[in-house]
Amino acid sequence: MFQKILIANRGEIAVRIIRACREMGIKTVAVYSQADRDALHAQLADEAVCIGPAPAAESYLNMERILSATIAAGADAIHPGFGFLSENSRFVEMCEKCHITFIGPPASVISRMGNKSEARHTMMEAGVPVVPGTKEAVYTVQDGRKAADQIRYPVIVKASSGGGGKGMRIVEKAEEFEGQFSTAQRESVNAFGDDAMYIEKYVQRPRHIEFQILADRYGHVVQLGERDCSIQRRHQKLIEESPSCAIDENLRREMGDTAIRAAKAAGYENAGTIEFLLDQDGSYYFMEMNTRIQVEHPVTEMVTGIDLVREQIRIAAGEPLSFTQEEIAIRGHALECRINAENPARHFMPCPGTVSNLHLPGGNGVRIETALFQDYTVPANYDSMIVKVIVYDRNRELAIRKMQSTLGELVIEGITTNIDFQYEIINHPDFQSGNTNTHFIEEHLSC
Amino acid sequence: MFQKILIANRGEIAVRIIRACREMGIKTVAVYSQADRDALHAQLADEAVCIGPAPAAESYLNMERILSATIAAGADAIHPGFGFLSENSRFVEMCEKCHITFIGPPASVISRMGNKSEARHTMMEAGVPVVPGTKEAVYTVQDGRKAADQIRYPVIVKASSGGGGKGMRIVEKAEEFEGQFSTAQRESVNAFGDDAMYIEKYVQRPRHIEFQILADRYGHVVQLGERDCSIQRRHQKLIEESPSCAIDENLRREMGDTAIRAAKAAGYENAGTIEFLLDQDGSYYFMEMNTRIQVEHPVTEMVTGIDLVREQIRIAAGEPLSFTQEEIAIRGHALECRINAENPARHFMPCPGTVSNLHLPGGNGVRIETALFQDYTVPANYDSMIVKVIVYDRNRELAIRKMQSTLGELVIEGITTNIDFQYEIINHPDFQSGNTNTHFIEEHLSC
Repeated sequence: MFQKILIANRGEIAVRIIRACREMGIKTVAVYSQADRDALHAQLADEAVCIGPAPAAESYLNMERILSATIAAGADAIHPGFGFLSENSRFVEMCEKCHITFIGPPASVISRMGNKSEARHTMMEAGVPVVPGTKEAVYTVQDGRKAADQIRYPVIVKASSGGGGKGMRIVEKAEEFEGQFSTAQRESVNAFGDDAMYIEKYVQRPRHIEFQILADRYGHVVQLGERDCSIQRRHQKLIEESPSCAIDENLRREMGDTAIRAAKAAGYENAGTIEFLLDQDGSYYFMEMNTRIQVEHPVTEMVTGIDLVREQIRIAAGEPLSFTQEEIAIRGHALECRINAENPARHFMPCPGTVSNLHLPGGNGVRIETALFQDYTVPANYDSMIVKVIVYDRNRELAIRKMQSTLGELVIEGITTNIDFQYEIINHPDFQSGNTNTHFIEEHLSC
Repeated sequence: MFQKILIANRGEIAVRIIRACREMGIKTVAVYSQADRDALHAQLADEAVCIGPAPAAESYLNMERILSATIAAGADAIHPGFGFLSENSRFVEMCEKCHITFIGPPASVISRMGNKSEARHTMMEAGVPVVPGTKEAVYTVQDGRKAADQIRYPVIVKASSGGGGKGMRIVEKAEEFEGQFSTAQRESVNAFGDDAMYIEKYVQRPRHIEFQILADRYGHVVQLGERDCSIQRRHQKLIEESPSCAIDENLRREMGDTAIRAAKAAGYENAGTIEFLLDQDGSYYFMEMNTRIQVEHPVTEMVTGIDLVREQIRIAAGEPLSFTQEEIAIRGHALECRINAENPARHFMPCPGTVSNLHLPGGNGVRIETALFQDYTVPANYDSMIVKVIVYDRNRELAIRKMQSTLGELVIEGITTNIDFQYEIINHPDFQSGNTNTHFIEEHLSC
């Protein structure tokens, strides 16, 4: 097992990983930017190293500085968390060259799954259903239009290197194609330096259903059930839950088997997620594979009793999975609400600032993941997610009530947050009856 | 279901009950003493009523004031928590007369189980094993000595109305009998106004094993497994866990069946606990029945997934149990450490004061029950328990590591606490190997 792990991240996920390491008797090294001097993750780790100024490019994305810190601290592995360098295959290659274990899949797998066209190819070959669309990347409006005509409108134009909704446009009809394609391609070039686009059938009002996978290096692959992440705003997930009320035992088994097939086809290792679009008619399509731990991983932990970060570390250290598919049982229901420092009344503008008063709820079935503390100043430089409220209860109805109660108790003063907005979603009759899809927010809430 | 519940308690258990009510859509009324003006429970409840000055006799034990507050607020039930009026049968009778539901068993059951001789009788008649001892109360040194000679030394002298170690003395040999009996009886008269004593065989180095019971008013009784509460200091529990590593599946089933038989013999209703002494040879003896929710109830909730406070409320409202014995499954392992504002280096002297800095750990499998917040002043008037740290993991070894990590992260500054003392116990090889009994602390730790 590793002696010391450097955590190449910040915020609640860095705290989450530090706790997992402590429980495993592994020393931790935090890295922090100058803006994160007082951050909780830097206080909780056994050691903390400043790696540069606030802009992520100069600190949390600076591969050389992070590797130097790892070597200087004598850490034998790096946990990347999510975001930042977690899906950067070049960084993984650099780790390999320095004989530092990257806690995640090999560089080749990250690279293959990070390229949407290649991932799609891999899945089609493995018999995993994909949304009808272009088999090769397209680069020009002309080729794109030809493809869209074949697929039939509505279609969605996506950047091959894209993510988080960037470089993505829905095209309802042929007349709009040129404008939307060009905008999306321009975004892609700006954000990812890549003009490769692809075009897919646009599945209307789908659910976002993803399966959690664990794979060791001995060919064992298990799935830990699904997460329903249909509640999104501009492709940013807001609420996640497990299990999904949209799928029954049969579909769960079928999609789970498909997810395992997908992970095997990718040559996967470590924790990963297979994202599917679930159509209203029950058909489902591979969307993408996330080759890292995800923000919403706690809901899976709550219903399975398996600690995913601990398993990531065990797998990276070369240990085999300690349980079989048959030993994984889903019990109860878990919900997660992402609390962001943002103002829903002002187009969700980020609202950094100082937390003047903080009351975090606790108690039975309530799990809070956060790096906040009273008098902490949320810096303006990073993602606005500041707290994850996770609740667990015996069934969905009870879990929803617990979330209402828990959000009602949560107090964060001094900065503006989306707590009330989340409360509004949780209270909506359509959310409560499970009648949701990825357009829920734009259709039901004024924002 | 009830519309509004008054919580006749304070501190973490009042907060715990308020949260359960909220989740059930029930309004809450807190009561508070003048010393508890700023207390969290008074802030969290929908309504809060001041019921008098700090001494408990004038507020939390003042039955008339609590009933007046209940009637004035229009609450239809009272949850007593633990301590204070929770096992006071006269108070339960007063509630009945006022047509207010007391969330707990009927007055007659509390009264019968609260009297140790009567409880013992009831159990013997039901075939529940009890420690060999006097069948009737004794009142004089002469009668006591005769009984002790028959039972054979060592014996234990106990006040019939006793509890919490008061009016209780171990007598190793005949010469010491008179002195110890007289002291115990004097304590009993002073504390409980009762000179009835009884004498039992003293079981050496036993474990304290208790079974959680739920019983509805339709004759359904289930047991939710055991808690091992062997880590005690002067009969005050410090660490509790479930399951116990001292009992196997067969013994668990046998003791569980016995606990159900005991509850049925008592005519029990609502949540209760059957406490046993477990001898080193595997024999076990009924010790007493607690007719209320207990401090350590969360460990049972963690391993069963059943919310005991919610079930208490449901049962009191006349609902039947929603699960059968077969549907109760124990999964994983839970530990609880009680954090007290006290100084282990100074004979565990209580240390009230102002919490100048507070960091409560969170994350996967960590549950904190507390009414603390930063800048809160712990009053000198009440029990010194300020935080319950509960952890849950897949097995005992992992749960212990999580407790080490969690206690290591917990920060309470400004007052002295027993965090380090708890850490010392958790780190002790004999605790870790499960080699514990009720004398663990006096035998292993200097205090």
